[in-house]
Amino acid sequence: MTANDMKLVVVGAAGRMGQALIRVIHETDGVTLHAAVQREGSPFIGKDAGELAGVGTLGVPVTADPLQAFLDAEGVLDFTTPATSVAFSILAAQARIVHVIGTTGCSIEDEEKFKAAGRHARLVKSGNMSLGVNLLGVLVAQAAKALPAAGWDIEILEMHHKHKVDAPSGTALLLGEAAARGRGIDLASQSVRVRDGHTGARPTGTIGFATLRGGSVVGDHSVVLAGEGELVTLSHSARDRSIFARGAVAAALWARDKKPGHYSMLDVLGLS
Amino acid sequence: MTANDMKLVVVGAAGRMGQALIRVIHETDGVTLHAAVQREGSPFIGKDAGELAGVGTLGVPVTADPLQAFLDAEGVLDFTTPATSVAFSILAAQARIVHVIGTTGCSIEDEEKFKAAGRHARLVKSGNMSLGVNLLGVLVAQAAKALPAAGWDIEILEMHHKHKVDAPSGTALLLGEAAARGRGIDLASQSVRVRDGHTGARPTGTIGFATLRGGSVVGDHSVVLAGEGELVTLSHSARDRSIFARGAVAAALWARDKKPGHYSMLDVLGLS
Amino acid sequence: MTANDMKLVVVGAAGRMGQALIRVIHETDGVTLHAAVQREGSPFIGKDAGELAGVGTLGVPVTADPLQAFLDAEGVLDFTTPATSVAFSILAAQARIVHVIGTTGCSIEDEEKFKAAGRHARLVKSGNMSLGVNLLGVLVAQAAKALPAAGWDIEILEMHHKHKVDAPSGTALLLGEAAARGRGIDLASQSVRVRDGHTGARPTGTIGFATLRGGSVVGDHSVVLAGEGELVTLSHSARDRSIFARGAVAAALWARDKKPGHYSMLDVLGLS
Amino acid sequence: MTANDMKLVVVGAAGRMGQALIRVIHETDGVTLHAAVQREGSPFIGKDAGELAGVGTLGVPVTADPLQAFLDAEGVLDFTTPATSVAFSILAAQARIVHVIGTTGCSIEDEEKFKAAGRHARLVKSGNMSLGVNLLGVLVAQAAKALPAAGWDIEILEMHHKHKVDAPSGTALLLGEAAARGRGIDLASQSVRVRDGHTGARPTGTIGFATLRGGSVVGDHSVVLAGEGELVTLSHSARDRSIFARGAVAAALWARDKKPGHYSMLDVLGLS
Repeated sequence: MTANDMKLVVVGAAGRMGQALIRVIHETDGVTLHAAVQREGSPFIGKDAGELAGVGTLGVPVTADPLQAFLDAEGVLDFTTPATSVAFSILAAQARIVHVIGTTGCSIEDEEKFKAAGRHARLVKSGNMSLGVNLLGVLVAQAAKALPAAGWDIEILEMHHKHKVDAPSGTALLLGEAAARGRGIDLASQSVRVRDGHTGARPTGTIGFATLRGGSVVGDHSVVLAGEGELVTLSHSARDRSIFARGAVAAALWARDKKPGHYSMLDVLGLS
Repeated sequence: MTANDMKLVVVGAAGRMGQALIRVIHETDGVTLHAAVQREGSPFIGKDAGELAGVGTLGVPVTADPLQAFLDAEGVLDFTTPATSVAFSILAAQARIVHVIGTTGCSIEDEEKFKAAGRHARLVKSGNMSLGVNLLGVLVAQAAKALPAAGWDIEILEMHHKHKVDAPSGTALLLGEAAARGRGIDLASQSVRVRDGHTGARPTGTIGFATLRGGSVVGDHSVVLAGEGELVTLSHSARDRSIFARGAVAAALWARDKKPGHYSMLDVLGLS
Repeated sequence: MTANDMKLVVVGAAGRMGQALIRVIHETDGVTLHAAVQREGSPFIGKDAGELAGVGTLGVPVTADPLQAFLDAEGVLDFTTPATSVAFSILAAQARIVHVIGTTGCSIEDEEKFKAAGRHARLVKSGNMSLGVNLLGVLVAQAAKALPAAGWDIEILEMHHKHKVDAPSGTALLLGEAAARGRGIDLASQSVRVRDGHTGARPTGTIGFATLRGGSVVGDHSVVLAGEGELVTLSHSARDRSIFARGAVAAALWARDKKPGHYSMLDVLGLS
Repeated sequence: MTANDMKLVVVGAAGRMGQALIRVIHETDGVTLHAAVQREGSPFIGKDAGELAGVGTLGVPVTADPLQAFLDAEGVLDFTTPATSVAFSILAAQARIVHVIGTTGCSIEDEEKFKAAGRHARLVKSGNMSLGVNLLGVLVAQAAKALPAAGWDIEILEMHHKHKVDAPSGTALLLGEAAARGRGIDLASQSVRVRDGHTGARPTGTIGFATLRGGSVVGDHSVVLAGEGELVTLSHSARDRSIFARGAVAAALWARDKKPGHYSMLDVLGLS
């Protein structure tokens, strides 16, 4: 830690993602853990955040008081729940600091509140904080646009661990949306999500999904563009859950000197 | 062609597979095209088989008379229909020659007739004549046996061209059967062939299938065994339809000096 | 063939690529074979171009007279030699038609002559006419730019058939150039082309190459961007040599209504 | 932990592999941590082994006295150094217990001492404790045997993290040995380990190696068998270093009721 380190608050600090964020902050140059917040009543209040995360004592006790935690902080890393993230975005706006939001499942109303908060906070929000996945989405849209639907079929394959309870994954759908945007089509009406038995020939212009489940796979995604005699495949393999924490820290550092606004990981990558 | 070349008859000579067989025979040492048979009434009767297949004049006119064609022949290559293959197997048994059968969709009654023919003919039959796919089936059964179901999930992925009208492919099912055999389970009751929406966690011991369609892919298959922290993947990629013709010719050469019997490609590979 | 079909000349018509071009023209809507040129003294002069290419009689005899062949033609497809392509580009400029050049190994002097010809001809030139490979180059440059060298290592893998006599492939180098361009570095000084024995840790910012050889693989290429905990892989698999002919025909159709100029496949893809 | 749990000792308990072993024992049914040994003078002596490994207090203090630790133990898990492993194998032989050795770099003399110890201990030793890699070796040998060298080229590809200082990896060489054994050839004289510039066509019967380095990849290996028109690829992807600890625990459980002897992971897999 040096005097110029960016001072970050982790909210939901005792959860799985919270602990991953604390570990990544600990091992990344240029950032420091300023405070660790957990909801009122949590058994972890008062414990040392570093010990919870397995990186040794950091001298930062977990607190239930976000207002106090945000004082003098420069950024908040937040993978919690929609309602909690909305509340934190209001505090971040008041404090005029960076708010990185990896929370999923937010409603349209939530998104509008985030937009409002972005008038004062520097808010970075994405459904997947991995740099690689966000880049892949941009490349997929571009490939889908360049290769005409008449000759090139788009297929999206994903594999996740055996505990995952839904299919296709949110990231597979995000990549499907990118492909549909590139093609200028509507994903919902052009998706083929099941193939079994007599399917008939593949309808031109559709986007197919296929799902594998097994072992402990963190998340592998491939988008295949199949033409006559050739295949273009754009893939991402997440080997470690820490990449989402790593992306959030990168987003905070990127946003440190930006103007207030509602940003995405594409802005962080310089691809928007 | 040399005096010792194995004399082969192609039946269904004017079809897509028939032509591929003629081309492979033409470019393979140790075999020669002895006769080319097409059904009575075909417009190709009397045409030169080599010209039909695009390899130049071979001096072998297409004939509708299999009895005459089998005279002095040493083997028959047959990717036709179940009924026709049964009829040819009786002729092959009478002539005591090799009969390589790549025909699919045969009934249990057909199979019994092939077994009977195998008392006099040297019959080699497989649902997929590729050496690689047949080897893969053996390896998959072995892997499925060695890696316990409690810790290792089996998934089967296939990709074929956009014109294919059914899913999963016959070869994917053949690989699924191999995995089920290795595990000592029943494939039909343990298959997961569709995943969409809320699926729940992956049931232990099942075998999952996933299907991609696009472009002109001849046939790619992967069997994934996914454990905690590691993946074993066994794959086959068919890049050219000629591999099925190539496998049939290899099977004929292998069977040339064998005793009458009903063989599979595993016998040809020395893996039975 | 319809009245509005684009009239194309194939030069080097009796060669492997010439025949592939004739076959693709034959099966593509909107184009027709206008003439087929072979060098003076070739044994194929006077033969029917369609019969040579295995698509039946087309009524287009192979000629040694390009001047005559280019009369009334709208485009020339040319995978010949540098000197021959330069000569044809002068004729194409005089005729003010489209000249698609897939010829490799051209010198800087040759390129200057092509540029001069581009003042009157609509010249499209690329070292690899496949749409997929050209798209991949664009995506690779973009990915290399977006993902910083400090955290992301770039590796390029290629596989070709056992007959290929050099390594890495021209396309692997083309992809390496794209990555280097994205990074703003010099490929030659930053390439790692051999790893064997004690190599030491990977130097940051380099671009590694690895080569596989075997079987009849037409050409598989992957560019891997490896970060901490995640991998982005951008791949192309050529399954059929016809893709180069197919790309050339697509380029001719694209250039049909363009102004004179020196274009690349990126222009054809709308990616320049 | 239940009364029937197998009581295991971890030696080198404070090291990276020692901690991974403690974590895997902690989360695996049927085994329990009996003792944790570290060399005399280590600053970790007396600390709780569970706290060191980040799984909470286990009530097992780290000790420098292996003799005491092996008393009443049923097995020893050992990823240390050759000299230390030899010393432990003598103690394990005296105690007539299981000794699982993942130590690498052992000399021929060391191996002879392990063999001697195997007269009384149940010793399981492998250069790679992953179940998947050991299975892959068996499958590769079988594939290399079944597919003739005249038509099938063998290539071995590996990727590891950017910190790895040698190439090809030990596991790539292990897979190469398996392929050579299947083919009945000598690996050293048939290896092609570098391809750059003008290589000439691929020599029939050789085994090629290619190496990728980047990011934090734990270890990916592929063996490609490339034939005319088809590819068989057998791959392993290690996603997590814990697989080596997991394999060691599986080996200990397997050996629990075996006779004294010198075993390998192939015995554990039922593939020897």
